[in-house]
Amino acid sequence: MKIIEDGTVTNPKGYKGAGLHIGIKKRNKDFALIVSDVEAKAVGTFTTNMVKAAPVLWDKQVVENSDTVKAIAINSGIANACTGKLGEEANEKFANIVGNALNVEKEKVLICSTGVIGKQLSTDPIEKGIDEALKQLKDDHQAGIDVATSIMTTDTKPKHLAVEIEVKGKTVTIGACCKGSGMIHPNMATMLGFITTDLNISKELLNKALKSVIPDTFNMISVDRDTSTNDTVLLLANGLAGNDEIVKEDEDYQTFKEALYYVNEYLAKCIASDGEGATKLLEVNVNGAKDVKQAKVIAKSVCTSPLVKTAIFGNDANWGRLLCAMGYSGEEFDPYQVDLYIESEFGNLKLVENGMATDYSEEFATKILSSDYVKTNIEMKIADAKATAWGCDLTYDYVKINADYRS
Amino acid sequence: MKIIEDGTVTNPKGYKGAGLHIGIKKRNKDFALIVSDVEAKAVGTFTTNMVKAAPVLWDKQVVENSDTVKAIAINSGIANACTGKLGEEANEKFANIVGNALNVEKEKVLICSTGVIGKQLSTDPIEKGIDEALKQLKDDHQAGIDVATSIMTTDTKPKHLAVEIEVKGKTVTIGACCKGSGMIHPNMATMLGFITTDLNISKELLNKALKSVIPDTFNMISVDRDTSTNDTVLLLANGLAGNDEIVKEDEDYQTFKEALYYVNEYLAKCIASDGEGATKLLEVNVNGAKDVKQAKVIAKSVCTSPLVKTAIFGNDANWGRLLCAMGYSGEEFDPYQVDLYIESEFGNLKLVENGMATDYSEEFATKILSSDYVKTNIEMKIADAKATAWGCDLTYDYVKINADYRS
Repeated sequence: MKIIEDGTVTNPKGYKGAGLHIGIKKRNKDFALIVSDVEAKAVGTFTTNMVKAAPVLWDKQVVENSDTVKAIAINSGIANACTGKLGEEANEKFANIVGNALNVEKEKVLICSTGVIGKQLSTDPIEKGIDEALKQLKDDHQAGIDVATSIMTTDTKPKHLAVEIEVKGKTVTIGACCKGSGMIHPNMATMLGFITTDLNISKELLNKALKSVIPDTFNMISVDRDTSTNDTVLLLANGLAGNDEIVKEDEDYQTFKEALYYVNEYLAKCIASDGEGATKLLEVNVNGAKDVKQAKVIAKSVCTSPLVKTAIFGNDANWGRLLCAMGYSGEEFDPYQVDLYIESEFGNLKLVENGMATDYSEEFATKILSSDYVKTNIEMKIADAKATAWGCDLTYDYVKINADYRS
Repeated sequence: MKIIEDGTVTNPKGYKGAGLHIGIKKRNKDFALIVSDVEAKAVGTFTTNMVKAAPVLWDKQVVENSDTVKAIAINSGIANACTGKLGEEANEKFANIVGNALNVEKEKVLICSTGVIGKQLSTDPIEKGIDEALKQLKDDHQAGIDVATSIMTTDTKPKHLAVEIEVKGKTVTIGACCKGSGMIHPNMATMLGFITTDLNISKELLNKALKSVIPDTFNMISVDRDTSTNDTVLLLANGLAGNDEIVKEDEDYQTFKEALYYVNEYLAKCIASDGEGATKLLEVNVNGAKDVKQAKVIAKSVCTSPLVKTAIFGNDANWGRLLCAMGYSGEEFDPYQVDLYIESEFGNLKLVENGMATDYSEEFATKILSSDYVKTNIEMKIADAKATAWGCDLTYDYVKINADYRS
């Protein structure tokens, strides 16, 4: 697998992008299109929140009922969630405007919205802005960056990448971008994530590949334990790489799945490290657990604890809070069998052996924690299952962003 | 039921208290005794965290195996959690020192500790301070206040009350105090809570009464979703009110249980409103739910959401976050059937009708939310089950207290 420097969704063959300001937000780009030259197979994963936004309901239908799709259209500023029938109508109108512009039926257009919950989405800016969006559609680097930028809300930076793999003698490219900063605790899906590829693959296997990587990547991050109403990851495959279609779980499927895993993990970590107000990425590795479920539950419990998150912000090696968060996770284990390490580019330090403090240097611990990428490694010593969760610290700015935020 | 103004644990007949500085903390009171003139029946509820502090393990044995107890001894500053065999030995020595001083076996002494996790508890200050503590033992008002003050950690104020009821022609008094500010998300128990009564009641019914009120009071509060390693509520009954012993669930038992419920709810709300960094108490009432479990799960989900808590801090009527937190609670319901109100001494306002925004005044909403006691009332309109959860807002000071805190 080769990583394409500064890659985006427009890197795979036959994808164009556009991102611009059309007037849903007061300023900043708020509208994006991802269009495939030829129609692409599409699969997706969506929020499990009982409160589902109108575009989520729409996309679930589209990926189930449409063999292929033409485009993804995204607006930021308004989430179109908790908007009832009116919201569903606006969403359909949104798809219709884009479909008309692209000469396809509205059922060929996937829609995503992100922003304020509860406000109705006016389609007027879309109606007025669609021509300009079409004019800007390009397959170059800047177009991919524009897409990644236009979908941002409280994100501080665009999140995107692309990788290349070799499939049946052909070069296949995967491009991706995502957004997400607050209300991040995906369950079955995530905030908005868009992945394009020119791979030729059956829809069934495309779906299987996506579903197999989501649980260990996007579903293992959390900024604030709040699962959004709009979480969506969409994966398009238009087949333009020219490889023979992948129709069984052979070596090529594995190659694709591994690359897809890399892409998803990369994006997930981008979201966690750009969590609202975050100053650092927190990675919690649980090793030696009874089974994967136990490892995941404990990793998430530690990673979402407000007391762990504030300690990480304060560069405070308060390991008692980590053990405490393990203890209330609901999983059974012997605390006096647990070892605990902290790790960063500044070093690796064992804080806890068999549930009790080692004679560690507080100064060195603080140094390790002062990194912007801190790992805590938990050794359960029960069996050999493991899991990783990603989160971020809890800071003044998280409070500021969410207490001062006015739509 | 009569509420005794500024009442404490020393109000019931035959209880003495003391609270003083003995040197576990650098400054501030850090040691308390609650002693019953005659031995009292004792029951308790304890943390469900897999990581249990040494005093929790001790007290569980004591309430199970000792018919009666003489005293509760509490230290603040060191939690004696994650301290292994050494910690258990220190706890036993602690009980022994207090038992010797009171001329009872160590198994007659309940111990509670609160403070930093992972540090060993030295019993030297207790050994040196116990005589002074005995000297200060009094049954007056100040002694009760001293107890409530000595058990505080990041609490900003002591939390205590006393009530009187009439049982079989006799006046029965219930006194109580508690502490708790961070790491508050009790499950089966709470932070430290101590309840004294002079009621004469069988141990079985005493236990039953406590267990029946905890789930709706202490277990319905949360400051930060972190369930502590030391949560303990202890209830002593020494029978000195002189009433005939309550031995069945008669009217007198109900009277006692209702008073106990009041006491527990009062203390639970005190803890929630004095949550670390809190500027206001948040009460979430869920009405019309399918069953009590659904009502509780939804109330807790809303009450613990960081995005709801920051919105409440910012006086922002961001009802979308409330609906979102209901939606990811795991409970099934139709969002488009939900009504949502906010309420305080400044008024009552319907923000949401059938899952969508009403045409409410943003200004009035902000006014209502500016209170230090904000209620959100959620009408599910499914059936008639209900529940209440209490929490607090999430503020800069929560981050400050927990990121800057050094043992």
